[in-house]
Parts: sequence; structure tokens; C-alpha cells
Amino acid sequence: MRIDAYFTVAEVDPTSIGDATVVVIDVVRATTTIIEALANGARAIYPTSTTEEAVKLAASLGREDTLLCGERKAHKIEGFDLGNSPLEFSAEVVHDKKLVMSTTNATRALTAGQGATRILPCAFTNLRAVAAAVSVDEWLVVICAGQGDQFGLDDALCAGHLVQRIMKAEGGDVAYQLNDAAQAARALAGFRKPTRKFLSATAGGAALVELGLGDDLDICADVDRHDVVAEMSDQAIIRSGE
Amino acid sequence: MRIDAYFTVAEVDPTSIGDATVVVIDVVRATTTIIEALANGARAIYPTSTTEEAVKLAASLGREDTLLCGERKAHKIEGFDLGNSPLEFSAEVVHDKKLVMSTTNATRALTAGQGATRILPCAFTNLRAVAAAVSVDEWLVVICAGQGDQFGLDDALCAGHLVQRIMKAEGGDVAYQLNDAAQAARALAGFRKPTRKFLSATAGGAALVELGLGDDLDICADVDRHDVVAEMSDQAIIRSGE
Repeated sequence: MRIDAYFTVAEVDPTSIGDATVVVIDVVRATTTIIEALANGARAIYPTSTTEEAVKLAASLGREDTLLCGERKAHKIEGFDLGNSPLEFSAEVVHDKKLVMSTTNATRALTAGQGATRILPCAFTNLRAVAAAVSVDEWLVVICAGQGDQFGLDDALCAGHLVQRIMKAEGGDVAYQLNDAAQAARALAGFRKPTRKFLSATAGGAALVELGLGDDLDICADVDRHDVVAEMSDQAIIRSGE
Repeated sequence: MRIDAYFTVAEVDPTSIGDATVVVIDVVRATTTIIEALANGARAIYPTSTTEEAVKLAASLGREDTLLCGERKAHKIEGFDLGNSPLEFSAEVVHDKKLVMSTTNATRALTAGQGATRILPCAFTNLRAVAAAVSVDEWLVVICAGQGDQFGLDDALCAGHLVQRIMKAEGGDVAYQLNDAAQAARALAGFRKPTRKFLSATAGGAALVELGLGDDLDICADVDRHDVVAEMSDQAIIRSGE
């Protein structure tokens, strides 16, 4: 089984991954929030790069059952229904709703995966489900959204735990080819587990703590919280098999 | 002490590192070869991005005591004196010579560090010397040349061992701020040592082995082989203190 990881979106050559299953990781917080929303009954999530796109898209989807989600510097954007904290996406709020989510980095990473066979958003919260959804016959490409344009330790650790889970599940009969980043991620996972404390020391986590949103990290670090596989199809992310 | 690592040159913002000491790492093989050449008595090394620049520069330096070094796909470039294998840079060949070296990735990484207080090329072969040359009062930026535009495990491991050495030497009295990549590199170094076998499984090392140049990796993995600190000054890399 071939597994290639990329720690930043800039390292991905989107034209070369057409046959792959792509996993996109943005632990703090986009993919964590996406999984939370789907687990709590949201019908679909539409990621957008900008606030303006989000507003337009929500209008075209029909505002009555669509929630606009996004924030700038810890404040909900004016006129929006929700920010980007997973804590806000409870069943009472999101059940049966369509969500338009303004989230720059995750959208870039999802876009880099366009053209792949499947695109699966992944966080620590749905690690087991994603690992089980990947077959040993597939070529797996793991794209970390990263911290801005830079390496993000939270996403790299999550990628590593995913690789470790897949390799453990398949046992010793399978030959694996890991690129350099997949090897490094797997090694990291061998001796680090995600915790709120660990995430607080990463660039993404530290920024949240500084804004008083440290409680979000409890969810971001909650491994296997949901048995949810999400899949991107056209513009929308839905629960797989639905 | 603040230590920031970058796994790819694209992640570096060259305008923001003016006050730093920059360490540039390209284990397979540019910085390994540079250290080998300086240890064996080369006067100065002039890295260039392209073959054409190398030829021009060698002409302007005076061809009688200048060696042209570079290769394309394991073959020495026509008209050049040496390839890029550290094995070629013996004292008999390079002593008292100026070397012009065509090496795309390392040159990009060195250029990204331009404007910094100091730029120190580093490989496993001069790890102790570089660690000793860095002071706890400095801000250290470690730039990995990487594998093309992508993460290279060889360089990341070397960066990690450098961080580990510095932190061990300074003991527990110093407070360290490591960015995400420096944390990850340090973690990798905690349980991986460079060996020929390890490097053979990285993208850069595997490419060499495929070309029949696997013996180069014995040198690339030879930790503390030379007590040499190299420093980039203007266009040239020289032994520090000379």
C-alpha cells in the first residue's frame, strides 16, 4: 500500500493524485468542527475560502435552512449564525441544516484534493472511522492543511496516527511504501498522543488558547469521539453512505 | 532561546529573519559535500543554482585554481571537474582550491537565509561543531532544503539532532521556544539515528542508491566526522574563523 503525506498544501501536486483517496486534516479546527456538525445531524457542509463566497452561497442555497459559519479573530462574523468552534455545533443548532463554512486553509487543502477518487475530511475525532474506510488496495494521500503556509504539528500528528492505525489494522502481510512525510508522521505518532496540553503547545492551539478558546482543544484531542466518515462530493461534505 | 525550523524553503519568510542565525541543511548531499570539501582544505565554495551560472562564475574567479562541480542524474556535467559526491572531494583534489558548485536546492535554501546575521551550512558530519557555534542568546532559524519542494526526512532528522544537541548542551536552565517544525524534528531525533539504512529509505537517499551512489550515504550519515564550522559570506562559503 502506498501512503503519501504532505505537511503543507503547497507541496501537493493536484494533477498527480487522480487515482488516490485523499484525506484532508485540519485539526484546529476545521475538520474537527466538520465532523462534529455531521455527527450532530447537519445535512451537508459547504466550505468556502472567503466570507464573501460564504454569503453568496448561503443565499443561493436558501437562507431558511442554511447556517452561515465563520469567524475572524475569535469573533463571529457580523450577520453570521455561528463561529468555527466545534462547541457551537450541537444537535439542537445544526440538525438537518446545511452549513456554509468560511475556512481558508481547509478549503485550500480540500481544493488541492479535487480530482481524486474520494476526499475524506479527517480529525482525531473520527480517526478510527477514516482508518476503517480506507482499503489496503488504495493509494492514500494525506494532505495536512497546516498552519497558514507552514508545517502544523497538530495535523502532522493526526496524519501519523492515521497511518499507524491503518498499518496496525492490516497487520504484517501488506507491504507499505511511505513517502518521507508519512514516515515522519508515523514516527511522531509512535510516542506522542494528542492531548489538550500537547495541542496548546502547537502554533494553532496556542493561538486559540490566547483567544480564550482553549476548551475547543478538548474536543480537537478527543480521539474516536464519533464513528463518522465524511466525504466531499462536488462542493459539499456529507456523511459517507448517506 | 527561540528555535524555528522550516522543512521546506517555501515556508520561510526571508524578510522576517534578519536578526537570526540561520542554519541550512541539505544532507543528501550538498551540505555534506560542502563540509567535506572545507575539511579537506578547499578555500571557498560558491554555490550556484544553475550550470550556466557556475560556468560564468568559475571563469570570473580564474579557472587555474577553481574547480567546477555539479552533476545531472549521476553524471558529471560535461566540462566540469567534479560531480557532487562527497567521496570526490579529497584533500588531493580540493586543497587550496576554490569550488563553484551547481546545486539547486541548497542554493535556494542559502538564498532564503540571506540578510540573516550568520548563515551556517550544516550536515550530520559537522553537527557538534554547529551546535557549539550557536549561542543560547541567539534566535536560531533552521532551513531544510528538502526534497525538491517537498519535505525531506533526511534534513528533518538532521535539524532535530541539531536542536537536541543544543538543548542538551545548555541544560535545563534555559527556556526554549520551539515552533511546530522544531518540535517535530526534535521528537524525530529522540528515537532515530542517521544510518546508511535509514537514509536509503528516504526519497533523497533512495534516488542515490538507485543511481549506484549508495556509498555516499556512509559519509552523509557519519555524525561529527569533521570539526568544521562553515559560514556563508557574500557569495562564498568558507571555514568559520578563517
